[in-house]
Amino acid sequence: RLRDLADRRNSVIITDENVFRLHQLRFKGWNTIALKPGEAYKVQATVDNVIEQLLEIGADRSWTLIGAGGGVVTDIAGYVASVYLRGIRVGLVPTTLLAMVDAAIGGKNGVNHGGLKNMVGTIRQPGFILFDHSFLKTLPDEQWRNGFAEIIKHAAVLNAAMFRKLEQYDTTFYRKHPKDLAQLVSLNVLLKMKVVMADEKEAGMRRLLNFGHTLGHALEAQYELAHGEAISIGMAFAASASNRVNGFSQETRLISLLLQYGLPVHAEFEHERIVEAMLRDKKKTKDQVHLVLLEKIGRGVVSPVAIKELQSFFT
Amino acid sequence: RLRDLADRRNSVIITDENVFRLHQLRFKGWNTIALKPGEAYKVQATVDNVIEQLLEIGADRSWTLIGAGGGVVTDIAGYVASVYLRGIRVGLVPTTLLAMVDAAIGGKNGVNHGGLKNMVGTIRQPGFILFDHSFLKTLPDEQWRNGFAEIIKHAAVLNAAMFRKLEQYDTTFYRKHPKDLAQLVSLNVLLKMKVVMADEKEAGMRRLLNFGHTLGHALEAQYELAHGEAISIGMAFAASASNRVNGFSQETRLISLLLQYGLPVHAEFEHERIVEAMLRDKKKTKDQVHLVLLEKIGRGVVSPVAIKELQSFFT
Repeated sequence: RLRDLADRRNSVIITDENVFRLHQLRFKGWNTIALKPGEAYKVQATVDNVIEQLLEIGADRSWTLIGAGGGVVTDIAGYVASVYLRGIRVGLVPTTLLAMVDAAIGGKNGVNHGGLKNMVGTIRQPGFILFDHSFLKTLPDEQWRNGFAEIIKHAAVLNAAMFRKLEQYDTTFYRKHPKDLAQLVSLNVLLKMKVVMADEKEAGMRRLLNFGHTLGHALEAQYELAHGEAISIGMAFAASASNRVNGFSQETRLISLLLQYGLPVHAEFEHERIVEAMLRDKKKTKDQVHLVLLEKIGRGVVSPVAIKELQSFFT
Repeated sequence: RLRDLADRRNSVIITDENVFRLHQLRFKGWNTIALKPGEAYKVQATVDNVIEQLLEIGADRSWTLIGAGGGVVTDIAGYVASVYLRGIRVGLVPTTLLAMVDAAIGGKNGVNHGGLKNMVGTIRQPGFILFDHSFLKTLPDEQWRNGFAEIIKHAAVLNAAMFRKLEQYDTTFYRKHPKDLAQLVSLNVLLKMKVVMADEKEAGMRRLLNFGHTLGHALEAQYELAHGEAISIGMAFAASASNRVNGFSQETRLISLLLQYGLPVHAEFEHERIVEAMLRDKKKTKDQVHLVLLEKIGRGVVSPVAIKELQSFFT
């Protein structure tokens, strides 16, 4: 189907070595750049390297860049396409559950800098997104957890009905029932697209999608944690903070759902180091952090929290 | 006046060492990053370095980045501001004639890559542009030529009346008559803004502003030439190409005006090497180059020229 969306003669696919190895036949006949897999390579040096290769291939402004992979790949492809020759067309083919329901949607892209997530990047919508659920067949367990962490996040801040549905099932069920999974993916894509269309630049509603991410990103930067694990711990923390700030009373339901999908809800960490990392978050302004809290399941709210108060949450 | 546009406590000025040295007092009390001057530093490594410093200073999304300098500085400031934290506010204070009439206007920014001009960047309009003509008092001769090269370009493709006015005077006159100079600058800013507003993404009319730039950029990449010199030679070449392709008959007037403002109209160079560099230009698509040619003084036109035909122009 990709051939209907882009011309092989003037397209380049960016993927990673894992995806390339598992799906080699699909890349036949396409210009392909296979990156080393993993968050560690989501850095400017990789971007420089891709740009170098695009120049060697002779890609001009009429070309399309296609990011086929997980969130790291789609983020790098989106970023390169937004700055190469001041912008060329980009298409995304998310191959992980996380990328399908989150990373590939909404136009955010970028790379990390000095251990801080997505410090450099742009917001620019892709020309197309191609969903091919057959990629999920080769997805490792950790990637299922990563995806469900974002799905639970969407449910927690935006959609109580989806939250109740998730409570009825688990990962094993969805892996065995591709149709239900496809429905769940579609619903999440629609949810996120709705938010992005209402607030592309993250001035209001889109901020809700950062639920669990302030602590999550700080943990990810400091410890070896998968994104889903980090934001799951972040969501559990935000639920507890919601209880203190808003009197949110459904903490147990969120914790239970996270555990049901194999996600951690607690970690031992050095509080000072993590608070410091939280304060370097992009969402910080002046002496406040904007935390996403819950009023109830399905309704998130952005609350400015003084840095002093934030510190008190950890003691 | 800058203080009315940006708060010193959450702003960073990017400038270069020359501007900083000549106008030190003006920077007092402002966070300042002074880059090494010159086109050689308009590269990704400088961008990485600025981002590093912004993180150290603790600049968050509420901050403003101010580019105070020539085209290199305004291009780097605009580019950094468009990708740092996925975009922060940018203001420009052009200090050279070239930056005032061209580089700072229109939102194009970026850095060079492997000797190729502006291969990486974005198009994003600044939050404000502050014109302070007193900076021109310290401008070296070469910079006056650079500025007038772009002014003559505007006249040649867009405004025959301005062309006739330029024919009546010279650089010495404008340096001695600040009021006439200010008027000329304003007219050029308006001209360029009109074009940019009609065609920000360079799909049509904005391409006219590339008059002289395809050969110019190629020469600049291969030889030690100032931007104004390079595009002056490029304009002379494009005038001759216009004669061959369109029967353009006012070649002599353009050549004379360029000479009148101290600009070169001819250079000895290796044709093959330069044609090759021209073919790596951003404006290239498939087997054609889009050259900006003149129908008459004041009216430019974008013409697709086959690569073979382009090569014949040099023999």
